[in-house]
Amino acid sequence: MRGYIFDLDGTVYLDDKLIEGAKEAITELQNRGDQVVFLTNKSIATRMQYVEKLRELGIPVELNQVINSNYITAKYLQERLNEKEAVLVIGEQPLIDELTEMGIRITEDEKEACYVVVGWDRNFTYEKINKAYQAWLNKAKIIATNPDRTCPVDGGEIPDCGAMIGALEGATGQPIDSITGKPSRLMAEFVVTDVLMMNPADCYMIGDRLETDIKMGNEFGLKSVLVLTGITTREMLASTSYTPSYIVDSIKHVPAL
Amino acid sequence: MRGYIFDLDGTVYLDDKLIEGAKEAITELQNRGDQVVFLTNKSIATRMQYVEKLRELGIPVELNQVINSNYITAKYLQERLNEKEAVLVIGEQPLIDELTEMGIRITEDEKEACYVVVGWDRNFTYEKINKAYQAWLNKAKIIATNPDRTCPVDGGEIPDCGAMIGALEGATGQPIDSITGKPSRLMAEFVVTDVLMMNPADCYMIGDRLETDIKMGNEFGLKSVLVLTGITTREMLASTSYTPSYIVDSIKHVPAL
Repeated sequence: MRGYIFDLDGTVYLDDKLIEGAKEAITELQNRGDQVVFLTNKSIATRMQYVEKLRELGIPVELNQVINSNYITAKYLQERLNEKEAVLVIGEQPLIDELTEMGIRITEDEKEACYVVVGWDRNFTYEKINKAYQAWLNKAKIIATNPDRTCPVDGGEIPDCGAMIGALEGATGQPIDSITGKPSRLMAEFVVTDVLMMNPADCYMIGDRLETDIKMGNEFGLKSVLVLTGITTREMLASTSYTPSYIVDSIKHVPAL
Repeated sequence: MRGYIFDLDGTVYLDDKLIEGAKEAITELQNRGDQVVFLTNKSIATRMQYVEKLRELGIPVELNQVINSNYITAKYLQERLNEKEAVLVIGEQPLIDELTEMGIRITEDEKEACYVVVGWDRNFTYEKINKAYQAWLNKAKIIATNPDRTCPVDGGEIPDCGAMIGALEGATGQPIDSITGKPSRLMAEFVVTDVLMMNPADCYMIGDRLETDIKMGNEFGLKSVLVLTGITTREMLASTSYTPSYIVDSIKHVPAL
């Protein structure tokens, strides 16, 4: 039995369009008896919203098959915070909801926050940069859900959490304290050990981004599979230090690996 | 005769409060027959607004004694653009005004822009990051008025243009193309050669920030003078590579150098 960990945007779909052959490939793997999970860094939707989206696109999936960076961020904070401590969130409602559901206390007061949690935020403003900066001056740690520079969309790319991280690092002059999503060891360990409960060598990490999907796969001993349906082109492979175990045109070739 | 180049925020005043002794020190230098100019990286006011502010604080000053990063940015673009070319501005109205006055054509269309000009912007939003990013994808160069991480204000610091630069670099994954304000050679050369018309060795650069004021002074052969009334403390001097020629508690000690 093998474990297949699929990235979503640029790998399974682009916006609301399924990548050709995605449904058939995933169905074939599940029919074989292999385990399939979906792993996204995107912080602007809840796990349940991904389940609904995948089902609408014709891919049968259960909640425990979807892991996102919000969920892993909530777990990270659960291990570090006591009940009285609180976090300031720069991010959208799904991130706030996922943290709240897992018992993390949220504050809007930069003096009370012991962590600033940064996710992709399409309502990002100067005021939020300043709030996070004042919290940091007041000794709060800054963590981010994911390091992705951009998110692939139909017809191009738009800035993702990397832009929010950059704004805060530009203000503080220092790297932020931690990133919880791919390619973190935290994320890899959780999905392989806790969810799939398999050996890394039996698992495939399939994604479109070298510095998250492929890097994490390689560093954790998974087989890494680059698909060319998202933000990475063959030309970009020439100058990367993250070499995939396999390169395929799209997800439809994954069952043949 | 000597030339004195004074930074403003943190050096001459903090918000609307004159630093104690600033007026007397500047008056003394001018009475001696030395030349005094003011040089700020701040992009959220026009040169005329600085003249008015200094006059209200009791410091007599003419427009030709004030140089800001907006002005030097406009000069930079004048040399590189033809009449048909246009720039996308991420910044506040004074930056737009200063560029427009000097004949630079402004566009809001990311497809038309051949430069993105980034200044400190307290109305910075995700939409602006995306617009600049799309212009960059479309081959526009990105330049910034100044690299300051923060601006000193009464009681603390707030994020400056460094945060805007960071957001764009976080999205593109690359350093921006150029920074026109302090510590650029462009800024140093303009103030010393074109405005003061003196030898660098006869000029003093007085400011509160190591990586802009002191760095530019040292690299251009000026005498650099750090004042401790702004964002730099004595502790911060231990770990810097920008060593000032002089360190004084405040501007009031400058005439005695």
